Amino acid sequence: MNFTLERSIEILERTPEVLMALLQNISSDWTLVNEGGETWSVYDVIGHLVHGEKTDWMPRTEIILSGNADKRFSPFDRFAQLKESQGKSLMQLLEEFKMLRTKNLEQLRNKKLTEADLMQTGLHPAFGEVTLHQLLATWVVHDLNHLAQICRVMANQYREDVGPWTAYLGILKQSSQQALQ
Amino acid sequence: MNFTLERSIEILERTPEVLMALLQNISSDWTLVNEGGETWSVYDVIGHLVHGEKTDWMPRTEIILSGNADKRFSPFDRFAQLKESQGKSLMQLLEEFKMLRTKNLEQLRNKKLTEADLMQTGLHPAFGEVTLHQLLATWVVHDLNHLAQICRVMANQYREDVGPWTAYLGILKQSSQQALQ
Repeated sequence: MNFTLERSIEILERTPEVLMALLQNISSDWTLVNEGGETWSVYDVIGHLVHGEKTDWMPRTEIILSGNADKRFSPFDRFAQLKESQGKSLMQLLEEFKMLRTKNLEQLRNKKLTEADLMQTGLHPAFGEVTLHQLLATWVVHDLNHLAQICRVMANQYREDVGPWTAYLGILKQSSQQALQ
Repeated sequence: MNFTLERSIEILERTPEVLMALLQNISSDWTLVNEGGETWSVYDVIGHLVHGEKTDWMPRTEIILSGNADKRFSPFDRFAQLKESQGKSLMQLLEEFKMLRTKNLEQLRNKKLTEADLMQTGLHPAFGEVTLHQLLATWVVHDLNHLAQICRVMANQYREDVGPWTAYLGILKQSSQQALQ
């Protein structure tokens, strides 16, 4: 399959409901534990997704589509949620994410993007020139990446409990180097 | 967190709804493609989960708790779904999984397992003696493992589309060696 806007929105519009189905009213034993050191808990990941809806995907789309000569993106703060989530419950963050995602997808649909729009570019602080096509594909894979990360962080809590079955469970073999991704 | 039956059921009872939220009525462009060779598509993974509900988790629990002298498990056929799913739509498999999981968790709850029950053992064809505690913890991690796998299989379809962002997306770096797990 090649990238299409329609197929991308299919994933992006499902993510809030997937996270609700997995995490709504679940015990905080599952959501406040991380993978050690500076790694993220499930709670931290949801805060990161909220921050992305506010400052990353649609703001960068707007920069790419703007008529401005300067199309540099602001760097994305991967640790902003540690401050921004303070005092909020997981349920509040899940609701906030759902609201922001719905609003962002409404804006995205309203743009009625053409193939020519998808080839427009912006300037990423590390990569240089990137296309809107690449940004929107990344939005989709970023959702799936963090959903898989949430599964891994939760699975890790039963690392010792599975005994010899650890040999069959690939999720327990993934490097903790991926913990911040 | 240490393993508890209550915390385990929290995950097990959510999985059917999580899969519905992610996959219900989604385009088959997302669900019929695998990661190459003999690897599994999303459709294959759901068939595997259905087969596990029928032949793995609760049947093995029954063997462990039985008074029989012979507590050997039947080997689990990891490719059974390739035949069993024939002619069924993804939606039919998702509904079947939900129905079987609900029934299995009802049976599990009705057993009112004690700590002593959780220490009972069965004989795994490859590992030898395993406890009910380990079997039930594995059921939970197996759900999370396959949910993460589904995310990876879907993300892989946009591998080329994300361009330079591949460097930030751990899910695209995972070895295809994990494709069958």
